[in-house]
Formats: sequence, structure tokens, C-alpha cells
Amino acid sequence: MASGASGEDSLIARYFKPIATDAGAFALDDDAAVLKAHGDDIVVTTDAIVEGVHFLPDDPPDTIARKALRVNLSDVAAKGARPAGFVLTLALRSGDEAWLAAFAKGLGEDAETFDCPLLGGDTVSTPGPLTISITVFGRLPEGKIVHRSGAKPGDRVMVTGTIGDAALGLDILTGGPVAAALSGDPTAKELLASRYRVPQPRNDLADAVRSYASASMDVSDGLAGDLTKLCAASGVSATIDAPLVPMSVAAAGLLGRGVVGLEKLIAGGDDYEILCTVPQAQLTAFTQAAGRAGVAVTEIGVIVVGGDAPRFMDANGSEIVLTRRSYSHF
Amino acid sequence: MASGASGEDSLIARYFKPIATDAGAFALDDDAAVLKAHGDDIVVTTDAIVEGVHFLPDDPPDTIARKALRVNLSDVAAKGARPAGFVLTLALRSGDEAWLAAFAKGLGEDAETFDCPLLGGDTVSTPGPLTISITVFGRLPEGKIVHRSGAKPGDRVMVTGTIGDAALGLDILTGGPVAAALSGDPTAKELLASRYRVPQPRNDLADAVRSYASASMDVSDGLAGDLTKLCAASGVSATIDAPLVPMSVAAAGLLGRGVVGLEKLIAGGDDYEILCTVPQAQLTAFTQAAGRAGVAVTEIGVIVVGGDAPRFMDANGSEIVLTRRSYSHF
Repeated sequence: MASGASGEDSLIARYFKPIATDAGAFALDDDAAVLKAHGDDIVVTTDAIVEGVHFLPDDPPDTIARKALRVNLSDVAAKGARPAGFVLTLALRSGDEAWLAAFAKGLGEDAETFDCPLLGGDTVSTPGPLTISITVFGRLPEGKIVHRSGAKPGDRVMVTGTIGDAALGLDILTGGPVAAALSGDPTAKELLASRYRVPQPRNDLADAVRSYASASMDVSDGLAGDLTKLCAASGVSATIDAPLVPMSVAAAGLLGRGVVGLEKLIAGGDDYEILCTVPQAQLTAFTQAAGRAGVAVTEIGVIVVGGDAPRFMDANGSEIVLTRRSYSHF
Repeated sequence: MASGASGEDSLIARYFKPIATDAGAFALDDDAAVLKAHGDDIVVTTDAIVEGVHFLPDDPPDTIARKALRVNLSDVAAKGARPAGFVLTLALRSGDEAWLAAFAKGLGEDAETFDCPLLGGDTVSTPGPLTISITVFGRLPEGKIVHRSGAKPGDRVMVTGTIGDAALGLDILTGGPVAAALSGDPTAKELLASRYRVPQPRNDLADAVRSYASASMDVSDGLAGDLTKLCAASGVSATIDAPLVPMSVAAAGLLGRGVVGLEKLIAGGDDYEILCTVPQAQLTAFTQAAGRAGVAVTEIGVIVVGGDAPRFMDANGSEIVLTRRSYSHF
């Protein structure tokens, strides 16, 4: 683990060595780690989260750690790979030990849960917001990565879990209208907030994605926008039955009461669900594999010929006009 | 390349796709890259640089890019590996196109020079200082990484290039006493400043390090401090002939005139030279290989039994008292 100062070295030793359990991490005592490939392809994905942009300044340190790792694990899952380890860059304003201890504890628990050990990293000082950059490695058999670009007309559009909860959670945590509408329902508020703070990457679905999906990506910037990207990469379009988009009870309630519109849910960010396309002939095998993996998957539409952005249809078969498809941090 | 907004997507496409030349980068159109291992071990190293901490706000964008990549390439070289590619996280305040164009140009030129293609990355928005985190991958034959921990008593302590120039360059760029002392010598000022801004990683020495060195690391936080770490990892000590530590003409002149003391040079940061130990029996082969690689190497001392910090001796054989051994950003 590269480090710039002896104070930093002792912090690293105390908090991060215990979670660097892989032999290739050399207990963080060296300048580099070794990743054994064993003939597999190594999938590499990197995502950073910034205080005040991707998480809130008062988020608990353990949820910040989990989110930083999980947004990357979600990419690994969507590509059909199994986690192999990660490296961490932590830009900190100060060496606040209580904060670091809680951060490292959350990170270590997730590293164990997802079988994704810390391999190395760098801790640097910053006068700015806390910034965490993580690069996660995954393994898969040679040539078996699932791209965004393989969707074909007729393939079914599938999505895991529920969509829109994290956008509602962010609204609640920043005191938006959803917070007021749910003032009498602390349980729903907490559930939605936790969906923003702690994504649930669908790594258990990776094998099914690799075996049966024609195209796949994770939903991080809004279902509508990410599906648009998948279609563009594949040279196709899609027709989505908006009423089929899976929603939590809390989200469906807010939608039904008119507190939020559909666009907030399908163009909101931070879902970290898997969006994939599955050929009709593989659909049963895919849904059965998802069932065995314990991951909810929902068919929401179909890939069609064309170059237009995907269309979202309401219960009457009319197209829903979307003024916005993605959540943008810029 | 993961990205949070379509504005960001077009910036990435314009400036970074041209330097993502490796097939495994998928032209940055996917959520992850693939690194082929071909039976080698993959070395992984990650280092971040922060505006105002590791580089100066008015440093040119192309030198910032080069430094961000090169500090990592230096680690790969010190471990005896060859570069295989890198991923980039860029936390930007704004999408300043002129800045990004110059940054990407410098990065692309270095990626080509060092045969280390861009594989993927993430661009995020930050309200704080520009922060660049890079993870570089290297390849080496299985089990052949050169650790910090292999130094044995009797091994020679070797260092590449010259030591202390970057610390002097930082002094010049921040208007310190060195700037005043060199006011009549703009060439020397420029040379030293460039040593701070654009490290010269010794990747051409990697094969020689792997073949002959017993321990190795790069000098990033000061020769004295980094040698202390190497000795601690190896369970040995060292005796260094301070007059043998290689210095540029400019640095030697400043030392001779009393403008700076030795400590500023050997405890200064940002050298990005290789510090390694070579068994006596391998010394000739190592220096010959270094000569063929075109990398200057200098023997500065010897590894000895003991657990004390390495001792730096002056021309009279007296120990030089060091009040500080490393440059610390914290």
C-alpha cells in the first residue's frame, strides 16, 4: 500500500491490514499487489464517489465504505464476472481514527460478504471533500464477458430488484417532498434511505447473466438513460411496459398518491440493479437460474429494431413523454 | 468507462477514446475492461495525486497527467514488472474542454511511450481540488515480483538517476530559497522544476531489477525514509556513504554553496527513482544490464545486520544526524 507518511503507515496497518486477507496483498507491506489470473480473463472496473456528490456528508462511515465498494461490485456482476479483489484510494481531510475505524469495519465486512479482498491502495491528504476511488477486479472464463452491445430484436428486457428507491431515498435524506409525504412512516423512510446509502449489487446473478444474457449493464444513472445506452451500444431500440417496471411498495405508494411521477423513479440514479437482455429461447433457463440464486428478476419489455431511444408505454399503450432519462451529477 | 451524464460521455468519447488503444478497453464503450493474463502474474499498484498536495494548481495539464501515470509506472518498474495498462479516475470541478484536451494529450503520449494503454475509468464531479487516481497493471512471470523484504546483509544498496531534484523543484515552484539562489540560472530552475512536475520512472530497468535485485522499491517519499522502510521490511539495516548519493550538477551546486542541506535532498519527496539491493555476486551483471538499458545506477552503501534505521555517513566516516527522513503530505 503506497503511503506518504509514517502517520499514514500506522493508520493503514491498524485499520486496513486486517481486511487485506488475500496472499497477493502481501499484508499491504509492499508497493504493489499480485493478482493471479489462473487462465481466466480479469475484468477491471473503477468508480469513484465524492462527498456531497455521490454520498452525503453526514452518511455513516460504514455505509460510505459499502457504497464505494458496491457500486463497483455491481459492474462486475453485470458483466457476468465473480469478484476477485479490489484496490482503494482514499483522499481524506484528516486522519480521524474513529471515522477510519468505522469505515474500515464496513469495508471489511463487505469484502468478506462478497468474497472480494482488499489488495492494496493509497491514502492521500486532501483539503477538499472526502473522495473514495475503488478499482474492483473480477474473473470470468476467457472471452465470456457480457457486453452492453449484444442485444438483438426480440430479446426480453429484464431488470433485477426494484427501481427508483434510491432516488426517493436521496430525496428523503435531503429533506425533499418525499420526506414530508412519508413523515408518518419512519420505516418506509428508513428503507428508502438505506437503498440510497447501501446499494445491493446482484453478484449472485452473475453466473446466470454470463450463461444466458445477450447484453447487460448495471443501472446506476437511471433505468431510462441506461437502457438508452445499452440500446445505442447494441444498435437497437426497445419498448418497455412502464407498469411492469418493478417497484417497492413504498415507491408504488408514492407514485399512486401522486407524490412523485414515474420519471423520478425511472430517471433517478443509484439503483445498482442489473439491466440485461435475454433471448426468448433462454428466458426460462434465465429466470430459473435467477430463482435459484435468490435474485428477483422482472421482464419489463422487448428489444425492437430501430435507432430511437427506448419507448416507455403506459397501461393504455400510449408513450410516456420523458423530459429527462438520467440522473446527472454534473 | 463508467460515467454519470451524457455531457460526460461526450467528453470521454472525444478525449479519452483515442488513447484507449487496447482491445480489452472495448473503446471505453462498456462498463468494464478485460485484462488478459496469458499465464503471467498481474501486478497492481494504485496512487492518487491531489491538486495543491501532490501537484500545484498552476501546473500544466499535460504534466499533471504525466505525473499521475508515472508515479504508478515507477512502482511497476520497481517491482520488476512491465506495464500492461491502467484505469483512471478523474474528479473534476468542471468539464473545461481545453484543460481536458491538454490533459488527455499528455496522458496519451505517455501511455504510448510506456506501452501502457488506458483500459477504462470514471469521471466524476467534485467541488474540491482536482484529484486523479490511477491504477496501473504490470505483468511478470509467475512468482517473480521483487519485494521490499528480500535485502540481506552484504547486499549493495543501489539507486537510479539523481536524488533530491524534485524537492528542489518544488521549492522553486513555490518561491522558496532555492528560487532566489538560482535567480540567475533559469536553465537550472527549469530543469529542477521539471523533475518535480514530470518524474522519469525507470521502467527500462525493470528486467534488470527482476533478474538481479534482492529487494526493491521506488523512492517517492525521500531516499532516507524509503530506505528505512525497505530495511524494516527486510529485517536489516544499512550503512550509506552520503557522498556517493547521486546528485544533479544543480543539486550538488546548491549543496556546495550551503543553500540547502543534505537532509532536504535525501528526505525530500517525488524522486521516483528505484532503490534496490543487489547481492555482491550479481553486482556486475546488474550494472551491465543497467548500462544496456541506459539507466544510470549508483552504489551508495551496503546492507548490514541490525534493526536500526539506516545510517548515512559523511566523508569523514561520521554519522549524519537526520531530524527528518521523509516528506509528509499530512
